[in-house]
Amino acid sequence: MSNGLSKKSGRIGVVGAGAIGCFYGAKLLQAGYDVHFLMRRDLATVRKRGLRIRSEGTEFHLPSVNAYASSAEIGECDVVIIAMKTTSNRALPEILKPMVGRNTAILTLQNGLGNEKFLAGHFGSERIMGGICSVCLNRVDHGVIEHYGYGNVSIGEHEGLPRDRTTALVAALREARIEAKAVLDLKEERWRKLVWNVPFNGLSIAGGGITVDRIVSDPGLLNIALGLMREVVAVASAFGHEIEDIFLESHVANTRLMGAYKPSSLLDFLSGREVEVESIWGEPLRAAQSRGVSTPRLEMLYALLRQLTAIGE
Amino acid sequence: MSNGLSKKSGRIGVVGAGAIGCFYGAKLLQAGYDVHFLMRRDLATVRKRGLRIRSEGTEFHLPSVNAYASSAEIGECDVVIIAMKTTSNRALPEILKPMVGRNTAILTLQNGLGNEKFLAGHFGSERIMGGICSVCLNRVDHGVIEHYGYGNVSIGEHEGLPRDRTTALVAALREARIEAKAVLDLKEERWRKLVWNVPFNGLSIAGGGITVDRIVSDPGLLNIALGLMREVVAVASAFGHEIEDIFLESHVANTRLMGAYKPSSLLDFLSGREVEVESIWGEPLRAAQSRGVSTPRLEMLYALLRQLTAIGE
Repeated sequence: MSNGLSKKSGRIGVVGAGAIGCFYGAKLLQAGYDVHFLMRRDLATVRKRGLRIRSEGTEFHLPSVNAYASSAEIGECDVVIIAMKTTSNRALPEILKPMVGRNTAILTLQNGLGNEKFLAGHFGSERIMGGICSVCLNRVDHGVIEHYGYGNVSIGEHEGLPRDRTTALVAALREARIEAKAVLDLKEERWRKLVWNVPFNGLSIAGGGITVDRIVSDPGLLNIALGLMREVVAVASAFGHEIEDIFLESHVANTRLMGAYKPSSLLDFLSGREVEVESIWGEPLRAAQSRGVSTPRLEMLYALLRQLTAIGE
Repeated sequence: MSNGLSKKSGRIGVVGAGAIGCFYGAKLLQAGYDVHFLMRRDLATVRKRGLRIRSEGTEFHLPSVNAYASSAEIGECDVVIIAMKTTSNRALPEILKPMVGRNTAILTLQNGLGNEKFLAGHFGSERIMGGICSVCLNRVDHGVIEHYGYGNVSIGEHEGLPRDRTTALVAALREARIEAKAVLDLKEERWRKLVWNVPFNGLSIAGGGITVDRIVSDPGLLNIALGLMREVVAVASAFGHEIEDIFLESHVANTRLMGAYKPSSLLDFLSGREVEVESIWGEPLRAAQSRGVSTPRLEMLYALLRQLTAIGE
């Protein structure tokens, strides 16, 4: 396997051991990869009791997990997987430094827009990859992750087409029983993801903590959701990414099937955790403004979410 | 005094004895007018103990108040003042019927758009007047109203210019120590009032229960508030009412002086009372749609408020 990502010698660092980091890291570890987790909150428990992943009524237990309190202890990796909330991005460059060597690839699994660009600014575009996860997870206890559904990851290069290292990473993830694929245009995939996240994550919070079925069943809110989707499509288009109408329609139809689903941002909001307002709404809005695209609904949703998620006032 | 509104012979009915109805009705009663209140919630208490209006550290007490449980007991009036919430408009025609004779004038003090038109549809345009109140009141107990500030009322005809009856009513209100004036164009005044109510009442709820100072001090929300104001101005313009830019600017400046003010709709919302979503946001939005005026912010705010104020789901 290219890029040093073989089971024997490849070293994988996982930064941010919330549900996403623990889930994918544990899958890779279970498949025999050399995985090293940077942890804070769950460190003591995971060192003592390992990681538990519950999925579809079964549980797999990894009793022995390499978990560390500092990135310096982990040192240089072949691949660093970033699964920290984007709300902590400011601290990220300092954290990553000891893990990034000359050939280290960085894969960010973070939500929203601008994360690859941010990392590229600190570590160079060359090494940056992004992954878009569709997965329903919840961290139910220290070192215990519950998996509810999906699990697929779309991997792409920050700049340019997939390369050997991209397909190698996809192959590694598949070996770890993760539904992975390489995408030709990561930026476009980010925009496509936002077409759903912007309206449904946002309106579920601004609508007073409502599940997505309430949005699609209320004619007024559905209309706003569609308006937000079209605004995101217009911004994407201004950046050269054309998203077809049928994509919107099928997203709405799929959402109808989700029932009383709570988007991840709503779960964050309801649990008092930080909501990723900037990467999901702020960055797309700033992208719109930079190209002179009118996005009044996005602008308003962003202002409301900033207010609704403001902490400590 | 014309229109039969003399202290001796004129009969004034007050429908809807919340804070507004009790306050203005009590002022007229205190000045010697023949006032009859239709009440439900506070009926027994007011019959026993009368009305109390607290204002600026003093209290005036009206021990003997004509209060009734049905409009049939009140019968025909010279003027009926409507101070019911617009959320009860559906019941209004049936309630008013026994009070409205051939020469009865109807004055609605209700919030928002469409109330005069609604009443005109049931009782004829000819008799309809509207009043726009700027007053800070709170019903603190059965029959007890606290007055915090302002109190002025702008009275106008639903159709056409002020007439003798308009100025007579203004004179009567002034005699009752209410700051009243006649306005040339009631519809335009309603739109001007909406320029403030639409953004500030709305965003105070959609922003998570925030006071108006939070809206004007947050650049994002202030921007949305201005966008909403401009949308209202555009709709008003489509109906022939031109509202000048300085009006918006001075409204924002005045709002800065209000401090931690809670708009009436927010007080309703926080107390679990019905919010007047249709008359303040729904009617202006439908007016916009009827003239093809684009109001994306209003549309979104309306959809969110409908959801946030939905009851019993």
